[in-house]
Amino acid sequence: MRVDGEGPITCLMVTDRALKCQEPSFSHKLQDRANRMCSWLCIGLDPDPDRLPGHLPRTTAGIVHFCRKIVEATGEYALGYKPNVAFFEALGPEGWTALHEIRACVPPGVPVIADAKRGDIGHTARAYGKAFFDVLGCDALTVNPYLGPDSLEPYMGHPGRCILVLTRTSNEGASVVQDRDIRGVPMYLAIARWAMDLDGPTEVGFVVGATQLSAIQNIRSDFPNALLLLPGVGVQGAGAHASAVAAAGDDGQQALISVSRQILYASSGRDFAEAAAREARALAAETWLG
Amino acid sequence: MRVDGEGPITCLMVTDRALKCQEPSFSHKLQDRANRMCSWLCIGLDPDPDRLPGHLPRTTAGIVHFCRKIVEATGEYALGYKPNVAFFEALGPEGWTALHEIRACVPPGVPVIADAKRGDIGHTARAYGKAFFDVLGCDALTVNPYLGPDSLEPYMGHPGRCILVLTRTSNEGASVVQDRDIRGVPMYLAIARWAMDLDGPTEVGFVVGATQLSAIQNIRSDFPNALLLLPGVGVQGAGAHASAVAAAGDDGQQALISVSRQILYASSGRDFAEAAAREARALAAETWLG
Repeated sequence: MRVDGEGPITCLMVTDRALKCQEPSFSHKLQDRANRMCSWLCIGLDPDPDRLPGHLPRTTAGIVHFCRKIVEATGEYALGYKPNVAFFEALGPEGWTALHEIRACVPPGVPVIADAKRGDIGHTARAYGKAFFDVLGCDALTVNPYLGPDSLEPYMGHPGRCILVLTRTSNEGASVVQDRDIRGVPMYLAIARWAMDLDGPTEVGFVVGATQLSAIQNIRSDFPNALLLLPGVGVQGAGAHASAVAAAGDDGQQALISVSRQILYASSGRDFAEAAAREARALAAETWLG
Repeated sequence: MRVDGEGPITCLMVTDRALKCQEPSFSHKLQDRANRMCSWLCIGLDPDPDRLPGHLPRTTAGIVHFCRKIVEATGEYALGYKPNVAFFEALGPEGWTALHEIRACVPPGVPVIADAKRGDIGHTARAYGKAFFDVLGCDALTVNPYLGPDSLEPYMGHPGRCILVLTRTSNEGASVVQDRDIRGVPMYLAIARWAMDLDGPTEVGFVVGATQLSAIQNIRSDFPNALLLLPGVGVQGAGAHASAVAAAGDDGQQALISVSRQILYASSGRDFAEAAAREARALAAETWLG
């Protein structure tokens, strides 16, 4: 089996779910690309107009320029990019145009994960799936499981794509919902179990806060090869290497280590892109367990 | 105390939360407008290109025209409008422009509720608040509580606006998360309790599926005057009058009865707007308990 013309891939790296599907799964493509790059670093694109380097205009055009330069400068070190949709919506209609422009400037084959945390039912969930997979052309989408299994089913018909289901997030108040005991199992783990049973060609992975070590362990214990996305590295306090070690899967790392502000705002001067590249290079090395 | 220059309003109609704030609360304004219109009908704008009347182009321009005509035709009967953001995002960048155009064609003073079910933390949640309250200029926003209290706090600084927190939704799989027992209380009710304790000038109300009668009763029992939004009327099976009766508050109805497809697609012909108006008129009468 060959992926992207880049040589053989052992089936040990992929989940059972991926094997059921003709098209290489998202995690399959990620693992292949990670092996070539020696990086599991995912760069979050959370462009805050107030934090742009001083010489750039605090406009949508300034944000597009900023993100394009970040993507160009870090391409050697980032396994993928994760635009945070809220920051584009806050710009009004121009923001969605900017989001499409930034998505288009990520080179083909480089994974893009829409961090949108959508959660709705039936025809509304199908519309979100269309918006992010078909129209924006993202490879993965973060989703919110509060509405239950049938709210995620409408995303399951997209071969080669992935939904990343929120499980245990890193914020202080998360425990009030996510850690509640459900017959001896915390809510987030009960959710992970039913989410992994969803049927369809779309892959299922999980979002776990990088600071939540016991949640990472619990999820890895149940799903040794599932794809994880770990935000909360850097400004939020978790270390990239420690996170990579804690979250590594059995047959391949399968854990995207997501860093945003530490890279985006590494310098507030004209050298912002070079500074971001230096930071990304160092972080990428930390994420790779080789 | 006078609101909108429309005569006195008794304080019995409003929640304690509203009284703490100088600006009239969202529910205060709703109750005042409802009293004048004799309607608690909220029209959901879920424009599906495949269901537009045959003579309209299946384009973004066609959707804007369709929604504008619906708003114009139903203005006499709708207490407010609830655009479903997913349907606009599915149109790509043009969709957000369309959403702003449609928001702008709703007359001043007529409440607009963004049905976006957002849920994220910190600066991301603040960006969503900015996107929907400040930039799009909506009066209320549906939000998802899965990330806990601190994920909703960033919305709480908007006087006169409202967040409507998802509690018990109408879909079959909802129970897997929302009905879980938390020390004798279902999860959705535990969430409603902490959500109502959030601090700030933004009002807090709840989304409850119109088919979920026991959930409506439980929430009303705890919060006799909270604002509720009840989707699921019409195509999803609940009756408008029965829903209004079940959800009525103690000192004013305070329950928006939301209907979408039954009104939008009342006719697939050139008379779609007139048919929508007839349907809205009948439904508005059903929602008003006088």
